[in-house]
Amino acid sequence: MRENDLLAWLAANARRHAHVPMGIGDDMAGVVIQGHGDGSGGVLALLKIDQALDRVHFDLREHTLRQAGLKAVNRCLSDCAAMACRPRAILIAVAFPQGASTEMGQELFLGCESAAGAFECPVVGGDTAVWDQRLAITVAAMGESPAAPVRRSGAVVGDAIVVTGRVGGSILGRHLTFTPRIAEAQAIHQVAAIHAMMDLSDGLAQDLPRLLAASGVGAVVEASRIPIHPDAHTLARTDGQTALAHALADGEDYELLLTLAPADIARIQALGLAVEFTVIGTVTAQRELWLQDEHGTLQSWPRGGWEYESDHP
Amino acid sequence: MRENDLLAWLAANARRHAHVPMGIGDDMAGVVIQGHGDGSGGVLALLKIDQALDRVHFDLREHTLRQAGLKAVNRCLSDCAAMACRPRAILIAVAFPQGASTEMGQELFLGCESAAGAFECPVVGGDTAVWDQRLAITVAAMGESPAAPVRRSGAVVGDAIVVTGRVGGSILGRHLTFTPRIAEAQAIHQVAAIHAMMDLSDGLAQDLPRLLAASGVGAVVEASRIPIHPDAHTLARTDGQTALAHALADGEDYELLLTLAPADIARIQALGLAVEFTVIGTVTAQRELWLQDEHGTLQSWPRGGWEYESDHP
Repeated sequence: MRENDLLAWLAANARRHAHVPMGIGDDMAGVVIQGHGDGSGGVLALLKIDQALDRVHFDLREHTLRQAGLKAVNRCLSDCAAMACRPRAILIAVAFPQGASTEMGQELFLGCESAAGAFECPVVGGDTAVWDQRLAITVAAMGESPAAPVRRSGAVVGDAIVVTGRVGGSILGRHLTFTPRIAEAQAIHQVAAIHAMMDLSDGLAQDLPRLLAASGVGAVVEASRIPIHPDAHTLARTDGQTALAHALADGEDYELLLTLAPADIARIQALGLAVEFTVIGTVTAQRELWLQDEHGTLQSWPRGGWEYESDHP
Repeated sequence: MRENDLLAWLAANARRHAHVPMGIGDDMAGVVIQGHGDGSGGVLALLKIDQALDRVHFDLREHTLRQAGLKAVNRCLSDCAAMACRPRAILIAVAFPQGASTEMGQELFLGCESAAGAFECPVVGGDTAVWDQRLAITVAAMGESPAAPVRRSGAVVGDAIVVTGRVGGSILGRHLTFTPRIAEAQAIHQVAAIHAMMDLSDGLAQDLPRLLAASGVGAVVEASRIPIHPDAHTLARTDGQTALAHALADGEDYELLLTLAPADIARIQALGLAVEFTVIGTVTAQRELWLQDEHGTLQSWPRGGWEYESDHP
């Protein structure tokens, strides 16, 4: 099974509903709900669901339950960041392995709460069960949109393509400890019109093509500008791959990938964000994606990137 | 681990947030969200998450993927019915066993969609992963409340205690094929003030005490009035338990348990609902729960009822 195939099928087969302006295919769905006795047009709720599974997304032989809970929630909150959404509530479902104690449940939920609590986004509901299989955590998030939510599909020809932070090598530890870029997304969106955005969960090699496809555009990315994390260099020293390959394909960066008018860059730099903010390329009308090397030569875009289905059987 | 212990701990440790009027402890949580550029007081979104696990809630050796998906969604929608909530969107996360094909994913989602589609409540988002463990389905629902949502805590002394449909013996098949009582809950709530309500997922023996405890009241239930399903009689003929015991303890009925003023009963009967509607007892001020036999003698309430944690290790 390939997740992309199934999601494409779902998106193609979804019936349209007037109260669902944003269905399957973006980082979150958007659904309009009415209050009771409310004659207004309703309010847009943004929704996301995400799983974290033992030995797929974390490994209880190495990681604590608290780390697992923290990561499970932060993965979901990273999708909230991707839409410049303000998360307001988290729901958690946990399938515990047999023999799990109430204390173990508490450890896991403390991890969840420490992630959610950092954003005033409480855990409002949960479901637990016990089975003779490994730990599975599912997190759903609901958020509101202070401004119009930012989608993947709004990239405009001539836009600067920007990445927050540094990418690659997250397996050395950052995949467990990252902070979702919620505050940064909202701060940027307040001073500039973000045209398109998503979070980097599968790696730039795989995620950038998704954003471009949704927007119906192409891009040229300058290889020398990609902000390579020191962890990618560390990995490269031992495994024979380049640090750039790690930066493009490792995934689980949970940084923001966005596009906006080049004129807006200065305004964002003036924010003085603690996280780096790097222009890596330009959106083009031609629906092709190129990696430009240091000599100015256009190289084909690397295939692949992180996909749980294929890389973690 | 006992789910009740963990949930009680979660409820006790939850911080209060102004935008969360209804946290852990009811069939759904209630969270107020704002629209963008919206100066209003916001809109109440109702939220629920629920799991369905292979060999706990269904068994793929006997049941199809479509049945599993249908049940997973209907379980969650039954909680929506319990609050007289109108479900508006469903999110689905699936951990597929290794070797699952895209077609199998489609079968599962078709089951989910047939459940959700019956209530104009589309599947708006999903997450899939593959692992070397059994199938796990998690469903989150978001709904709106046409009137004020009905909670477990509003039962009033003198209320009639009502059950929809018939209970017991659902393991013979109804646990897979039930229809969540969404339409009935809303129809009843439109003509009468439902004081307290929940859905019967763990069985009357276990669920009624929860409703009474949340309301701070007691009850007397007349054993002869409990609407016993023919399936409970069928089971009783072979296993030596009484049909009444099955009706009280089997669980997975997914019927409504509600309380309202006796004067409102006639108005509900006038609705002519297709589903049975049976008064089984009365809410009392004394915080005790009694089962009254056909001789008028008060018997102690049966302990137990269905709990996945203890009954399905």
